[in-house]
Amino acid sequence: MKSRFLAATVSVAAFLVITAPIRANDSLTLKRIADEVLRNRHAYENLRFLCKKVGPRLSGSPRAEKAVQETARMLREAGADSVWLQPCMVPRWVRGEKETALIRYFNNKTRPLNVAALGNSEGTETEGVTGEVVEIRNFRELDSLGALGMIRGKVVFYNYPMDPTQVQTFRAYGQAGAYRGGGPSLAAKWGASAVLIRSLASNLDDYPHTGATRYNDSFPKLAALALSTNDAEFLSNAIRQKQVKSVIIKSNAKMLADVPSHNVVGEIRGSEFPDEVITVGGHLDSWDLGEGAHDDGAGCVQSIEIIRVLKALGYRPKRTIRAVMFMNEENGLRGGQAYAEAARNETGKKFIFALESDAGGFVPRGFGFSGSKAQVARLLSWKPLFHPYGADDLHEGGGGADIGPLRSLGTVLAGLNPDSQRYFDVHHASSDVFEAVSPRELNLGAAVMAQLLWLVAEYGL
Amino acid sequence: MKSRFLAATVSVAAFLVITAPIRANDSLTLKRIADEVLRNRHAYENLRFLCKKVGPRLSGSPRAEKAVQETARMLREAGADSVWLQPCMVPRWVRGEKETALIRYFNNKTRPLNVAALGNSEGTETEGVTGEVVEIRNFRELDSLGALGMIRGKVVFYNYPMDPTQVQTFRAYGQAGAYRGGGPSLAAKWGASAVLIRSLASNLDDYPHTGATRYNDSFPKLAALALSTNDAEFLSNAIRQKQVKSVIIKSNAKMLADVPSHNVVGEIRGSEFPDEVITVGGHLDSWDLGEGAHDDGAGCVQSIEIIRVLKALGYRPKRTIRAVMFMNEENGLRGGQAYAEAARNETGKKFIFALESDAGGFVPRGFGFSGSKAQVARLLSWKPLFHPYGADDLHEGGGGADIGPLRSLGTVLAGLNPDSQRYFDVHHASSDVFEAVSPRELNLGAAVMAQLLWLVAEYGL
Repeated sequence: MKSRFLAATVSVAAFLVITAPIRANDSLTLKRIADEVLRNRHAYENLRFLCKKVGPRLSGSPRAEKAVQETARMLREAGADSVWLQPCMVPRWVRGEKETALIRYFNNKTRPLNVAALGNSEGTETEGVTGEVVEIRNFRELDSLGALGMIRGKVVFYNYPMDPTQVQTFRAYGQAGAYRGGGPSLAAKWGASAVLIRSLASNLDDYPHTGATRYNDSFPKLAALALSTNDAEFLSNAIRQKQVKSVIIKSNAKMLADVPSHNVVGEIRGSEFPDEVITVGGHLDSWDLGEGAHDDGAGCVQSIEIIRVLKALGYRPKRTIRAVMFMNEENGLRGGQAYAEAARNETGKKFIFALESDAGGFVPRGFGFSGSKAQVARLLSWKPLFHPYGADDLHEGGGGADIGPLRSLGTVLAGLNPDSQRYFDVHHASSDVFEAVSPRELNLGAAVMAQLLWLVAEYGL
Repeated sequence: MKSRFLAATVSVAAFLVITAPIRANDSLTLKRIADEVLRNRHAYENLRFLCKKVGPRLSGSPRAEKAVQETARMLREAGADSVWLQPCMVPRWVRGEKETALIRYFNNKTRPLNVAALGNSEGTETEGVTGEVVEIRNFRELDSLGALGMIRGKVVFYNYPMDPTQVQTFRAYGQAGAYRGGGPSLAAKWGASAVLIRSLASNLDDYPHTGATRYNDSFPKLAALALSTNDAEFLSNAIRQKQVKSVIIKSNAKMLADVPSHNVVGEIRGSEFPDEVITVGGHLDSWDLGEGAHDDGAGCVQSIEIIRVLKALGYRPKRTIRAVMFMNEENGLRGGQAYAEAARNETGKKFIFALESDAGGFVPRGFGFSGSKAQVARLLSWKPLFHPYGADDLHEGGGGADIGPLRSLGTVLAGLNPDSQRYFDVHHASSDVFEAVSPRELNLGAAVMAQLLWLVAEYGL
């Protein structure tokens, strides 16, 4: 352990050299920002509106367009100097009539399963797909069974649980996510007829969790449904006990042609360096099952709250701050691409920094940063300022899907890291509702985001 | 900020000198402990049983006795070498038929308020108390109105909200708690007829939150009821608009004579230093409104889980570990006193360390420690070991109500610090139910508690 302590000593000493020029009363400014957020319910009430009055907001849907109009209103009410819509074309995936899956037992009785078609997936023919089911623990197993011809004509059931021993649940999600993303086409390669996938969920319950899959155009586009974790356990047991004759799957999902949509942008113009632009955002679209509360209504209302709090306190930032509601993060990333494209075309502007909140409205633990060594070092030197807010786990490496395309413009990227323990209980499921969000946790996230942005606006990078 | 960085450098350097003798594979042992807890549902299923099959467990109630028997069973099932009950007398407070409070308007219409009698409070006469209501913002205001005779015969309504700008919600609770604890007798001193108190809650909703009050025997023991935060706002507005003629309060609460009860203790005997005893516990009693899930079923099942995980992994600790379900934390602390008394009488035993989990089953952020400078320094030197679990906010100052009496035996005290943002949404209210607990958050708390205890058992203090 000694070497670790020595390393810590060295890096603390290094802060003394590379620290940003912090003024003595900065911590007081940050406290005023936090107090103003924590005393208010604006972010929470905006989230309630987005969840209860707008509802699920799948890209290209009428509700997504309503969300565009309503968050533009919220940004104006928050006091943005200007608010505009930024056009982008988005895919239009529709679930259609609710999908079904049934176990048929050897005794011909049936039992329904809790399922939801994966986003971007195609449906079955009207009569559905009936087939023997083969449980697959991992891709190696798929390939060996496939090579023996044992996948052909079967329904593949991927039963890869999220690893509960990963304290950072996003790591477990990343591992298991390979099956949702690539599983349908890899099963199709071996001639499977349809795919069931254990939901990417960290708990055992009855909610199927949807999410995007990615077809490989070389293979047939199989219907692909997520199964609740309880039903994944149930089906696995029933298979082990040799009770399952077949499963019958029907899905009406399909991908339609692209339709026009928008990002929503609200800006406070910088007082000294208006051409240096700081971006903060979340994504406005959501899956269709829940209310998109944690994913990512939270990130949207937090970004709006940053505009509000700076205006309410009369803190005009030295650099321009833009709050962005990105469209189509879930199944296309078209909004993030359109924003970066527009940024590239804004001559004279420099997009110095971008912060994304898309990991749920949970209690903030810190931020991850991607940039040059010197830029990251400056950001990390602010660590002590975030200690009173429990959000001082600042580290290298971070960003987000929507701001990712800005990296090619040299923008420093940052991601808010809320605590991740509860995220995959509700992620992409009908349980992702307003009631699952704690107002204090949501607000504390908005507070530390506003503090970080104020520091970047004040000192630059 | 520079001086802060220098201080950090010095204290990190200090660690190099006073650090405990840590072996290279300790972090691996801690990982095995965490994995075993995170893979399992024992703590969560024990909590489900305690909440759903036992239910609210007010000291002296039949359900509290059932909780004694059931947690003794859980400790045996967890593999404790021995399990025993430790007698203590406890107060027996009963709520009786549900209390009521009504606003009577000047137009003689009435409106009910969401109320709950405070723990240990006395009831009203059968016909209740009817009186004008006077809203009090703080004790200074009470005293100035009292000196003018304006409290006499009135119902005092303390409307002191928890300060939302306190990031550590326990601080806000401590401030506002003065009104629940001392408010009834201070109002009685000025001749008030009854007391309503805004619930100690960090959110706005309809749940009244109970909790103990402390009468001063020099004054009449007024009926005292907590009011939901929504109704506190409502009543305050109605008073401001001069609509309220009176309030009518009925409470059937009363304190009965003490009855016998028990702490529950389960032990793993130390392999090398069996006479050095490490205590870990939560409290078994709960208020009567909810299920005592976060307060403090969580601390109980986490303490049981520590026994289970060490047994399951075959990690026999060098020092003795005792998991204790303390009785009567909520309204008397008799269990904690009985445990310390028994400890004092166990000749030849040394009670070296005690850890309490009584701040909810939320995601763990760290531990606070009270002991000698050298002891605390050794504990703080383990900080890097807890970083992978997000629980490395180790600091001086900590303990708990039930283990407090051990301090006089020279025991080093520690408190688990879970994240505090959601605790006072449910604390002492009917919303403190099993469903409010996240299995991953609960387990992660148990994991870091087990890790800390293993380190203390291995290296001593």
